[in-house]
Amino acid sequence: MITILRIGHRPERDKRITTHVALTARAFGADKIIISEKDTKLAEGVRSVVERFGGSFQIETGTPWKSFLKNWEGHSIHLSMYGQRLDEALGQMPRLSDLLVIVGAEKVPREIYDLVDFNVSVGNQPHSEVAALAILLNRLKGDSVLYQDLDGRMTVIPTQRGKKVEERDE
Amino acid sequence: MITILRIGHRPERDKRITTHVALTARAFGADKIIISEKDTKLAEGVRSVVERFGGSFQIETGTPWKSFLKNWEGHSIHLSMYGQRLDEALGQMPRLSDLLVIVGAEKVPREIYDLVDFNVSVGNQPHSEVAALAILLNRLKGDSVLYQDLDGRMTVIPTQRGKKVEERDE
Repeated sequence: MITILRIGHRPERDKRITTHVALTARAFGADKIIISEKDTKLAEGVRSVVERFGGSFQIETGTPWKSFLKNWEGHSIHLSMYGQRLDEALGQMPRLSDLLVIVGAEKVPREIYDLVDFNVSVGNQPHSEVAALAILLNRLKGDSVLYQDLDGRMTVIPTQRGKKVEERDE
Repeated sequence: MITILRIGHRPERDKRITTHVALTARAFGADKIIISEKDTKLAEGVRSVVERFGGSFQIETGTPWKSFLKNWEGHSIHLSMYGQRLDEALGQMPRLSDLLVIVGAEKVPREIYDLVDFNVSVGNQPHSEVAALAILLNRLKGDSVLYQDLDGRMTVIPTQRGKKVEERDE
């Protein structure tokens, strides 16, 4: 099971980036996202995607990160442009335990670096926590989750031109 | 050479997502981004990253997308959750010509789907154009670009805890 912990979310400024983080987590096979700061509207938006497109992805907001991280019993990874290389870290990472992936917004408290098992970079250039999360989850879960049937009310059928969506009556 | 074409950018609403698109393009090995709508401030922010962290990534804003796309002489890909599967498209995609990757914001004009060579999905779930671009570029360019030395004034050295940055005097 893979859980994402988003910290430093500022509802006004980060609503779109954090939504991208949450939807990327869902599409790339994570099970749940926890957002340290309360944001009911954001949670509703993400739940509405789950309700339409299926699956069992969960979102929770307003859970203080420090106690959550300290009580976490599985392994933990912090995504950071300063961390060790992803390819090296993957070789050392246990695959069986529950995994917590920490995704910070712009500034991350210094103590995070010491509280986690791994600080991992997807490239050492400044880019995007959305991109970093996608690459990490893709390595962990593979491509097959990307096209799995989530049994949603709406299902997109891949097509070369235009849009093809199957809608199921409830 | 890989060029990204961002369309539908609304400076106020999309400034952070488009910045993530641009920085992801740079970090994952694209050469240039063209943003259809004018946004001088966004371009300055991206150029400041290039100036500090190195490389020769270019950004241009205010170039109308339609004439640019129609005059494009290489191949073109439009990233869309409705498109054909990435793994299938990659098998059909010529690797030698210049490639244009179109990344839309929320709504994309219908004619885009017909003007490009490929409409490609990175999963058929709603998620993020930043995530989709990262995965596509990573497939096209491999992991080696992620950790290449861009000869920047600032160079991040991967490390297990904390931050290690080499700064060069100019």
